[in-house]
This record gives sequence, structure tokens and C-alpha cells, in this order.
Amino acid sequence: MTTLDDFTRRAADLDATNPLAAAREQFDLPEAESYFLGNSLGPLTHAARAAVLHTLDDEWRNGLVRTWHDGDWLELAGATGDLVARVIGAPAGSVVAGDSTSVALFKVLSAAAAMNKSTTRRVMLCDSRNFPTDRYVARSVADLYGLDFVELEVTDMPARFADDVAVMTASMIDYRSADLHDVRAVTAAAHEHCILTVWDLAHAAGAVDCNVFDNDVDFAVRCGYKYLNGGPGAPAYMYAAPRLVDASNQPIPGWFGHAEPFAFEDTYRPAPGIARFSSGTTHVLSMKAMHAALGVFTEYSMNDLRGTCIALGDFFVEGYDAFLASSGFGLGSRREGAARGGHIALLHPEAERMSKELVARGLVVDFRPPNVIRVAFSPLFLRFGDVARLVGELTRLK
Amino acid sequence: MTTLDDFTRRAADLDATNPLAAAREQFDLPEAESYFLGNSLGPLTHAARAAVLHTLDDEWRNGLVRTWHDGDWLELAGATGDLVARVIGAPAGSVVAGDSTSVALFKVLSAAAAMNKSTTRRVMLCDSRNFPTDRYVARSVADLYGLDFVELEVTDMPARFADDVAVMTASMIDYRSADLHDVRAVTAAAHEHCILTVWDLAHAAGAVDCNVFDNDVDFAVRCGYKYLNGGPGAPAYMYAAPRLVDASNQPIPGWFGHAEPFAFEDTYRPAPGIARFSSGTTHVLSMKAMHAALGVFTEYSMNDLRGTCIALGDFFVEGYDAFLASSGFGLGSRREGAARGGHIALLHPEAERMSKELVARGLVVDFRPPNVIRVAFSPLFLRFGDVARLVGELTRLK
Repeated sequence: MTTLDDFTRRAADLDATNPLAAAREQFDLPEAESYFLGNSLGPLTHAARAAVLHTLDDEWRNGLVRTWHDGDWLELAGATGDLVARVIGAPAGSVVAGDSTSVALFKVLSAAAAMNKSTTRRVMLCDSRNFPTDRYVARSVADLYGLDFVELEVTDMPARFADDVAVMTASMIDYRSADLHDVRAVTAAAHEHCILTVWDLAHAAGAVDCNVFDNDVDFAVRCGYKYLNGGPGAPAYMYAAPRLVDASNQPIPGWFGHAEPFAFEDTYRPAPGIARFSSGTTHVLSMKAMHAALGVFTEYSMNDLRGTCIALGDFFVEGYDAFLASSGFGLGSRREGAARGGHIALLHPEAERMSKELVARGLVVDFRPPNVIRVAFSPLFLRFGDVARLVGELTRLK
Repeated sequence: MTTLDDFTRRAADLDATNPLAAAREQFDLPEAESYFLGNSLGPLTHAARAAVLHTLDDEWRNGLVRTWHDGDWLELAGATGDLVARVIGAPAGSVVAGDSTSVALFKVLSAAAAMNKSTTRRVMLCDSRNFPTDRYVARSVADLYGLDFVELEVTDMPARFADDVAVMTASMIDYRSADLHDVRAVTAAAHEHCILTVWDLAHAAGAVDCNVFDNDVDFAVRCGYKYLNGGPGAPAYMYAAPRLVDASNQPIPGWFGHAEPFAFEDTYRPAPGIARFSSGTTHVLSMKAMHAALGVFTEYSMNDLRGTCIALGDFFVEGYDAFLASSGFGLGSRREGAARGGHIALLHPEAERMSKELVARGLVVDFRPPNVIRVAFSPLFLRFGDVARLVGELTRLK
């Protein structure tokens, strides 16, 4: 039986060989804290701060409206989308950033519904364990396009797939348990019945191999503020499969999605490709932070990213087995790293009190009712030493 | 006949008595320039810069995800809306900021269409001279809600108002000529037939008395980046008349519009009041800049704002009459200040060349095909001296 000291020494060894260890230097993190909520709001990077300052002091202050033509603002939604594309396994040019996730999901679900509904295809299936906002939006789209709205668990969907279904929508990761759904298998089963799939990559992008292209996903969405570290309320992004995109029409046609935004044509003519999913003017300040934060990802392979994410979580499970399982804690997530997203739900009847005490001691986790301490292993900045520290504090909290 | 020297001396006198003169100190403007495009992208304020820096270095860096609960991010969309409300003549609590104008217009038009369409009310009227994006969005909403889409000029609308019309939408200001429509009269004529009115306040808010409440407007929208100086791609805002708002439903129901966002309820329950028009997470960095920039408006009365805006434009018209009218220039806007918005279209066959030369000399205007030099008189930072300088340069450009 290992001791906490052994466990902490192991952490130091793992940090020394972590291929992502140097990435932490690109983050501006509070010195005394271990931050386990990169799945909720990713931390500030030096690059994001510098990009926003440059936008304030040079592009906006000096360039003023001329920067729309002399600078990169017009291309920013597509350029940011391209950086996201690399992270989620999508081809360049197939992702555009903008809007909030609610609006983005509304657009892609509407596009899918409009494209695939027919007199015989009249059903939308929605992940019943999905984040509530996604369910609200999905129900609204179903109402608007005259589809019957059916909620069920993702694992039960393949049995329900049939030729009366137009669209299915689900999250790749369960936001509570971190259960990772088999996107490839579910999508393939949907396609057997010509059902379009719309996946929400919340808690997945930046922590898990999403491989949206290889998995043949039709549409995907999510925000930039979780593992992508894009900043508070960072814009969302939208992916459409290249084989579908030019036949897709979303219901909010604005000038930034027009084939020629500055021709001021009388009639809407959608831009070729994913740009047609843009609507209004890019929120430049928010988008600049997101664009810069995504730059960090380009220096590392997705294999290493996923590897470190799993290794951090596995190390926590090891600590759980050795020091926590016998003292009233439970594990609310799967123990096999490959079956989980980036976070773990640790269960305890006094989870609320414990979460507060952890935060007070600089171990930033969150509480989810009724009994979950949620701990996320964001791979670009978290250290195995942070995990050892967390396990140590948890043993002292009883 | 006055000389250019007399005209420049008059400018100095007018600057000395301008009740808004001190407001310029709150802007961080390039020293050598006169900026006549506050109607397109308002300049940086010291307050906006400070607010964004505070968000980066304190709220995001140090507070991290805790700022959502300890800080003001959750209330930011409503607080920013309240500052807009004062500028557009709306009661506190009746405006919310967020999204882009395209998305905002989609939401309010959809809400109006859903509320007022019936088997006999099947028409949407749209301003045929409206900004193209507005027309694209309006047509899409009409299609989605099964309304016939009819475009005509605002001035022709009252003659077309009848009991088969559900919704009309138009811009308060013509974005080319700056013609100011009679919002009160058009709205009253619409209401005689129980038609809902949706006004776009582009080129109006911050330069003109919009008085949306007193004018009995049903819904209004616009962005924060023009006269409001909210920054590049600043969020939009939405107004719904208090008498209507709790019966309004917009089609993108997200957690930020829910009565209890953090209750994670299975079913969407819209928040009371205008908050129901919010959908996803606030784009904090962009919204912080807009919120801070709007603070400048609270120090001045809308009467003084409108007064200075008209006086600057009238002074330009005076210069036009004295020095430009006889040398090939034309006036593409109304000469009575009260009939115009904040900008003036100056016409010349060589407008494109002249615009470039003006910009090169630090007089920032823009060109609109085929023959328009567009000059905006943003009242918070522009000086009568800038206008005199512009008129002087124009006389030398021939």
C-alpha cells in the first residue's frame, strides 16, 4: 500500500515526463491555486491578453473603422474556426466561430431539420440527459419545423432509429458523469436510416478526440470557453460536414454569411461553405481572445493532449482507490480513461461543504447537487502535482 | 459672404459653448485625426479600455469561473440593456443586450410574428430601403412563420396598413440619406390596424431621440458599435414594450433567458420581462467594453446630445452652402437638422477619390457608391473645429 508521500513523488515523476508540461507557461494562472474547472471556464493565456490589448490599443484605437478592411477582423470568424477544426478533427474551412452555443445549435438544428424533414420523416430525437439549454433549443426547433419531439438516452437511440426520424441531437459527453458516447457507432446507426446527426461537443473539444470528420458527423457545435480557454462567454462554433454544407441553409441570414457581404445585394446569397452559418458582425474583442487562446493548441498533438488528459484522470482514480474509496467517497464516472471525457464526478454526501473547503484552500473544484464534487483535468496547464495535492486535501477533509 | 477664416473662428466659438465639449476627454482618439465615422465604429473610450483590462487581469485571471457568481457577469446583459434604455428612451428593465443585430432582429421579429399572425393576418411589411441584412432576416422570418413578405418604402406603409398585416419592420433612419422617419406617426397608423411594429435603431440610437416608449414602439433592436461606441462587433440589444413582453416568446430559448438559469429544469420557463430574449452565455469581453462606453452617456442629457448632433450637422450644411455648393458638390441629406439622423451624405462625381484623399489627410470619412461621401457627426467627441477643417479640405480637393 502506497503512502501519500509516495503518491506525491509519483506525481513529480509524471510531471517530468508529461509531453505537455511546458504548455503551462503559456497560461497566466494564480500562483497559489490548482484549477480543476478548465471544463467550465478555461484560464487566461498570455496570448489572449496580448491579443485583446493589441485590439484595444492599436486596431480599435488607431485603426478605428479602417481595421475592418486593413486588419483581420473580417476573416476572424473563419480563422478561429480553422483553429477549432484542428482540435475537433475537422478539415480546414469546415468550422466557423460566432454566436452563443444556443444560437449556434438553433442554426445547425434548423438547417438539419429543413434539409431532412419530409411527410414521412417527422421526428426529432434528443438526448434526454443533454444540458437543459440544448433540450430547450431542440424542442423549439422541432416545433418550428413541425417535427415530433422525442427525448431518450443516447444509448437507447440506435434502437429507435427508423425512417420516420429526420434528426437526432445529443452531447458527445454527459455533462454530469463525463460518460463518453460512441459518436462513430451512433452516427453510423443513424445514417443507416438517413438520419442527420447534430452533436454538441461540450466537455469534449480540447479534452477528447472528437474526430468529427472521421466519425462522419453531420453537424456539430460548442462554445470556446471551456477546454479551449477562449475567455468568459467566448463565442461558439459550428461545423457542417463538407459533403452537406453547400446544401445547408440556416434561418438567420446576415451579411457576414453572404457570398459578398459588401455588395449589399437585394437578395440573400449564402457564401459557399461554412461561412453561410455566420449571421451578424463578429464580436471582435471576445473572438480575439478565443483566437489567440487556440494558438496554444497548435503546438501540441491531439494524441498528446488526450494522453495527458486521460493520464491525469487515471492518476486521480489511482489516488481515489488508495486513499478515498474506503472513507465514504464514491466514483461517479467510469474508471477506464478511454470511456470518460476530461472530468470526473467524485461523490460524497457532504460534497457541498467539501467543495467550499477545497476552494478556500486553493483547490478550485465545483459542487453539483446533490452529492458531486466535479474535478476536470484540463491537460494544457494542470500538473500531476495538482492532482496529488487534491487527493491529499481530500483525505484531510473528513 | 463669409470666408473660411471666419468659418473657422465661428467653429471655435461653438466649441467653447458646446455643452458636450468636455465629453471628448473621455475618448482615446488619435491626435491628428478628425473622425467622422462614429456612425460606423465609435472610438475607444478610456472607460472601455479600463473595463476590458479589469476583466482580463482581475475577473478572468484571478477570479476565474468564480466571477460568474462573485462578479457582475450574470447581470451584465441586463445592466448594459439598462444603459441603452436611457439612450433610446425606454424604461429601465425593458432592454437586454446580447447577440448580433441579425440574431436580435430574428428573435424580435419571430416573437412579433408568432404573437400576431392568424388566419387572416398573413402579411409582413418590410422597409424596402432597409439595410440588406435586415431584409434578409425579415424574409426568412416571414417564410418560417408562413407570412407573405411585402417590401415597400416606409413612407408608403401607412397607405398599405390593413387588417391582413401582422408585422411591419423598418429602420428609423435611412442608412444612405439619413432621412429620419416619423416613428410615432407610422407606429400609430400601424396600431390602428393592430399591426406590431419592429424598428431598427441603426444610425439613430445615440444621435437622435428614439423615444421608443413614448412613441409606443412594440419592438426595437440595434447594435452597440455605432454611436454607442461599444467597440468592434459590440453586442446588439433588444427592446420589447413592457405591455407586450410577458406575452412574447422568441424561438431560441437558452439558459440565460430562463426564469431560473441554474435550476437546470427539464422545461423552458421564460424569465419575466425582457430577459427572456437572452439565449446563451454573455460574450463578456465584448459586453464589458460596451457597458463601460455607455457610461459616458449617463453624464449628459439626451436633449444636449441631440442638440449638439444637429448643430454639428447644421454647421456643416452652412459650410456646404458657403463654400461647396457652387463647386460641384450636392447635398444628399435633408438640410433641416430635425429631419436627419446623425450623418450627412455629401455628393460629388469624384466622391471615391476625394474620400481617399480626405482619409490620407486625417479626415476620416467613408465612400458609398456611386457618389457619396458619408460624414457622421457623433456628438460626444466631434468638435465644430473638425467640421471647419473638413469643409476647408473639401474646398482644396477639387
